[in-house]
Amino acid sequence: MTDITYLGVELGGTKCVCTLASGPDAIIAQHRIPTTEPGETLGAIERVLDDWMTDHRPVSLGLASFGPIDLDPDSPTYGHITATTKPGWKNASVAQRFARSTGLPTAIDTDVAGAALAEGRWGGAKGLSSFAYITVGTGVGAGIVVGGRSVRGLGHPEAGHMHVARMPGDAWPGACTFHGDCVEGLASGFAIEQRSGRPASEIAADDPVWAAVAHTLAGMCHNLVMTAVPERILIGGGVVTRQPQILPMVRQRLVASLAGYGDAIAVTGRIERFIASPALGDQAGPLGAIALALDAAKAGQAAPAGV
Amino acid sequence: MTDITYLGVELGGTKCVCTLASGPDAIIAQHRIPTTEPGETLGAIERVLDDWMTDHRPVSLGLASFGPIDLDPDSPTYGHITATTKPGWKNASVAQRFARSTGLPTAIDTDVAGAALAEGRWGGAKGLSSFAYITVGTGVGAGIVVGGRSVRGLGHPEAGHMHVARMPGDAWPGACTFHGDCVEGLASGFAIEQRSGRPASEIAADDPVWAAVAHTLAGMCHNLVMTAVPERILIGGGVVTRQPQILPMVRQRLVASLAGYGDAIAVTGRIERFIASPALGDQAGPLGAIALALDAAKAGQAAPAGV
Repeated sequence: MTDITYLGVELGGTKCVCTLASGPDAIIAQHRIPTTEPGETLGAIERVLDDWMTDHRPVSLGLASFGPIDLDPDSPTYGHITATTKPGWKNASVAQRFARSTGLPTAIDTDVAGAALAEGRWGGAKGLSSFAYITVGTGVGAGIVVGGRSVRGLGHPEAGHMHVARMPGDAWPGACTFHGDCVEGLASGFAIEQRSGRPASEIAADDPVWAAVAHTLAGMCHNLVMTAVPERILIGGGVVTRQPQILPMVRQRLVASLAGYGDAIAVTGRIERFIASPALGDQAGPLGAIALALDAAKAGQAAPAGV
Repeated sequence: MTDITYLGVELGGTKCVCTLASGPDAIIAQHRIPTTEPGETLGAIERVLDDWMTDHRPVSLGLASFGPIDLDPDSPTYGHITATTKPGWKNASVAQRFARSTGLPTAIDTDVAGAALAEGRWGGAKGLSSFAYITVGTGVGAGIVVGGRSVRGLGHPEAGHMHVARMPGDAWPGACTFHGDCVEGLASGFAIEQRSGRPASEIAADDPVWAAVAHTLAGMCHNLVMTAVPERILIGGGVVTRQPQILPMVRQRLVASLAGYGDAIAVTGRIERFIASPALGDQAGPLGAIALALDAAKAGQAAPAGV
């Protein structure tokens, strides 16, 4: 990339990160804004973007947001947050609002899809066209890329809410308010804290809870292999980063679970590379928004439908 | 479609169906060949295709085959059957052999992916770009289409081998030789017969086994919604066709399982259309091969890599 600049906004549950960049190694400016109610938060973001637009001439805007988001370009509520339980954000217009205020070609996807696309462009999945990016933090999310594009259909994936095989002998009911013992209900930071009575970061590396967490994440990888057939699965997020013993346990349990079936043979021979850490660290989210901005610029998209 | 003709071959575990057609309602000729050992079977198919090529001038060939198949166009064994347990077929060259013998642009995909593409073009998923087609027969297979294309990555989906939430109180270990209680291990015709001691078709509609089967298939649909986000899921195959009480049970259990989460809300309001029967009946497989032939003709593909 040259001196062409792009705007990115990662909208998270607790904070939003605005980024002005010409590439992954050329972040010109970055600004954090706490996520409060939508009018205040989105207004503050607009003022940051406005300043940058005056001084630089960014060509497009990428939005990587918490969800669920309406991603149907033909929908009147395209780019709105939809059924969130986050106070005030239900039906908040994000993409249409920013497309209008900036006048720039704008793309939106989930935060995890953005992070996955950034890892595919510049990070741990570089050169691959089908891969997945799992983040294990307060919740469990996954960005799924198939044939170079993030998966879309009825909506966007919510792979953290799939069910998997339970660890034999483990009958803890799980902490997901929707699905009980889905992956998020068993392996998220929230679930681990509910189960153990203390934050995941304070639990010893040899605590038995990690076997249940690793079993659940291996089950998630098993089901991704059988459906989206990723060439690699990156697993990051606060819980996994602070408890590095988890990833080797996931690898071991995934190999056992796949049991040498079909293409899974190709996985077991290179499991260290198949289940890997993301490469962009804390910048995966912000660069996810920049990756979406690059897509928006490439598509030469005008403002999204309905604007 | 006009008078342009296409060749299709569906390779199945017990029989192969060769089709000469100019469209879904214009099957000109069809010929069945028992599946024995590869030399004999593929030779017999070649003779049928050869006759048709002399009399008609088909423009392309589609192959919809049992798997696993190597679908990596850069692989020297592209279009080969790979790790099958079917005697003699391991490493059998299918696509390269037929591309060479016919000299036609050739496409290959799994039998279920072909059937899914045919249902998308002409059948129960017409007009949709993201959907899934599940067949419950001796085994359980699924074709997954995202953005109009069948999913590819590390290989092709083997969604019948995902794990799902077990029905509370049901601890039957499952019949899959690889994964025990994966979907195929619990809901396939083979598994049902192992469990019940008689063929699925001879079991009464109110037998308790159907609750376990429906629970498993609903779990499969739940996980597909969370990963591939299909706009519709078609469920067919011998077991489901002969036991029509299964589909309403799957719908009911899927609505309960999704629990109103996110985009799943959109599903529950139109569950009758979301979980539906395929429309092409016995011709889904043969027309799957024809759908792949259309793709091959459109891509203007020469013979596949390595030929």
